[in-house]
Amino acid sequence: VSASSAPVVGVVGGGQLARMLHQGAIGLGVRVVVLDPDPQCAAALAGAERFDGAWTSRDDLIAFASSGVDVVTFDHELSAPDDLQALEAVSPVPIRPAPATKLLGQDKLHQRRTLSAAGLPVPAHAPVSAAAEVEAFAATHGWPVVLKAIRGGYDGRGVWIVRDAAQAAEVLAFAPNLLVEELVDIDREIAVMVARRPSGQVRAWPAMRTTQVDGICTEVILTAPSPIEDAAAELTRGLAERIGLTGVMAVELFVTGDGKLVLNELACRPHNSGHVTMDSCVTDQFEQHLRAVLDLPLGDPAPIVDAAVMVNVLGGPHPWGAAGLGAALEVEDATVHLYGKEHRPNRKLGHVNAIGASVDEARERALRAAAALGSPRPDR
Amino acid sequence: VSASSAPVVGVVGGGQLARMLHQGAIGLGVRVVVLDPDPQCAAALAGAERFDGAWTSRDDLIAFASSGVDVVTFDHELSAPDDLQALEAVSPVPIRPAPATKLLGQDKLHQRRTLSAAGLPVPAHAPVSAAAEVEAFAATHGWPVVLKAIRGGYDGRGVWIVRDAAQAAEVLAFAPNLLVEELVDIDREIAVMVARRPSGQVRAWPAMRTTQVDGICTEVILTAPSPIEDAAAELTRGLAERIGLTGVMAVELFVTGDGKLVLNELACRPHNSGHVTMDSCVTDQFEQHLRAVLDLPLGDPAPIVDAAVMVNVLGGPHPWGAAGLGAALEVEDATVHLYGKEHRPNRKLGHVNAIGASVDEARERALRAAAALGSPRPDR
Repeated sequence: VSASSAPVVGVVGGGQLARMLHQGAIGLGVRVVVLDPDPQCAAALAGAERFDGAWTSRDDLIAFASSGVDVVTFDHELSAPDDLQALEAVSPVPIRPAPATKLLGQDKLHQRRTLSAAGLPVPAHAPVSAAAEVEAFAATHGWPVVLKAIRGGYDGRGVWIVRDAAQAAEVLAFAPNLLVEELVDIDREIAVMVARRPSGQVRAWPAMRTTQVDGICTEVILTAPSPIEDAAAELTRGLAERIGLTGVMAVELFVTGDGKLVLNELACRPHNSGHVTMDSCVTDQFEQHLRAVLDLPLGDPAPIVDAAVMVNVLGGPHPWGAAGLGAALEVEDATVHLYGKEHRPNRKLGHVNAIGASVDEARERALRAAAALGSPRPDR
Repeated sequence: VSASSAPVVGVVGGGQLARMLHQGAIGLGVRVVVLDPDPQCAAALAGAERFDGAWTSRDDLIAFASSGVDVVTFDHELSAPDDLQALEAVSPVPIRPAPATKLLGQDKLHQRRTLSAAGLPVPAHAPVSAAAEVEAFAATHGWPVVLKAIRGGYDGRGVWIVRDAAQAAEVLAFAPNLLVEELVDIDREIAVMVARRPSGQVRAWPAMRTTQVDGICTEVILTAPSPIEDAAAELTRGLAERIGLTGVMAVELFVTGDGKLVLNELACRPHNSGHVTMDSCVTDQFEQHLRAVLDLPLGDPAPIVDAAVMVNVLGGPHPWGAAGLGAALEVEDATVHLYGKEHRPNRKLGHVNAIGASVDEARERALRAAAALGSPRPDR
């Protein structure tokens, strides 16, 4: 196929997910164009074409969709749902996932109501705007409770655990419209990545075990799934069909102390939880997302290794320099993925995927490589 | 590390090897800049930066090496050895591999003499410029003999098998300075990819089994090596040390009818024979080449699958179109790598890597995916 007839995927936002979508597009002969105001965004630094504009501007979104791309998809949740609906109404090309689907990852109340109505296991929840409402909810479900921003929370921002009405009132004083949820008795956390194409094919990777510290994903484990993890994958496949997903979706779930699954979060895009698929599965989440939004056949999500662990590389006190990169690359069977971003302490600057004969072996390698890059070792 | 301090690898030539070097550079946070006169070259189409110039121009080579790159390496053999030596004399940055090393892949007579002097197994050979010299050579080694261009042959161009002095004279009439070689009794062909960094570390992938049709590589198999294949890998590691290789090198060898190894060709760069490493080994040839020329620790070349087969995608009668790409992606456990080139019949437009529990399974998948893209099924 000639260069001029290559499929073109437009990505709203040029962060690290768009960067890795571009990387995954090269082999497919697909062009990625990102909508981003920053010439130095992570995707542009890796050579993705850039359409200059703001994802918060309805006009820019519409101009982007009309610029010759074949489909519009997303790096993040930062475009307003209203703008995306307006975009969908006039766009000459499909928006995938559709704004109504994407909204499930943007509006937690809408998500809880939709999933609950579908009979899926979600925590008990209610919208609240006064401490008395939180107190009434806690009278049924017990303290502490979790308060969550309905829109805009990310990486632990917009989530508060409160132990009494006074603490709830403190949060509501600056965030007056929240969701209250029961505090689930969490044994552990898992995530399932799934892909669906418009014509209906659905494929999920095996469930992954995830570790969050302060709401930020720090470690993801891919290994042979247990029965409850298989059940989580099945549940996620069903959810993808029910909501008419197009593209890749991440679903984060809790395994409760009594061995049940509870849906925690979802995001209709490639996700930090799926980075581990890059060096461990036949098809990774980035190539799969491109296939899905272009309505091409989905690839095989099966792992080709016994165990793989992903660890994020967060900014340490100083940039790592050439010696740090060298030390990271010394670690056997670890693969480094850097995002090209300016160093800042605690900023997500990359991730390391390591493989091994066991989870422990893979984790030790991933942590060692991340530490060589100056990433603070996560408290666990 | 900030974007501005990212290591920069300059690649002479922007073809598919440079394109895949760029792809492999993204995760390392490395920038690839290619020297190429064509804004639509395969690497630029994938987002590699381009320095406008000709690899046949000494001035352009020198300007390129002085443009802010940290090291200069190569997509091909097309720069004149004299120009590369002149470049090396004035370049502010290292040329890797060094021109003297690279010459082994550019000048077959020099290569045969060097390897022969080192006691390595090469075919009997002699420079010839008259049919009588060919006849004298054949008197010792028998007809038919092989005539080869000393410089510039590639993909089967510049190689002739001749059965008598009259045929030799025909070739010498238009190519007056050639190498004559004995026709080796070939049982099969193998290739070994090896990497060496300047500080000395050497790592080789397992030997691969290759199929050539009319001098063009059509199929490469990676699976558990036999003892003679292990011996070939060992020989190649030793050769890399002896010649002071920096970067990746491909060595093509014959296994003779009586079970001996004979060195056939070498190229000091990533190579078609190494494409199969992309989806089957911990570290592929492109990331490894970048590590090597930047003098970073080499990655693990070990396979992570039982069997993998690479098949080239040559242009068929027509471009494949969206339906062809879809049909190729339908093939399970096959990964498509396209080069973004304009379609032309028989042009190398990409390759497919497929994995499987057996070589037969992987080959069947790779051939099916390549056929879906219109690639003529190779005669074997």
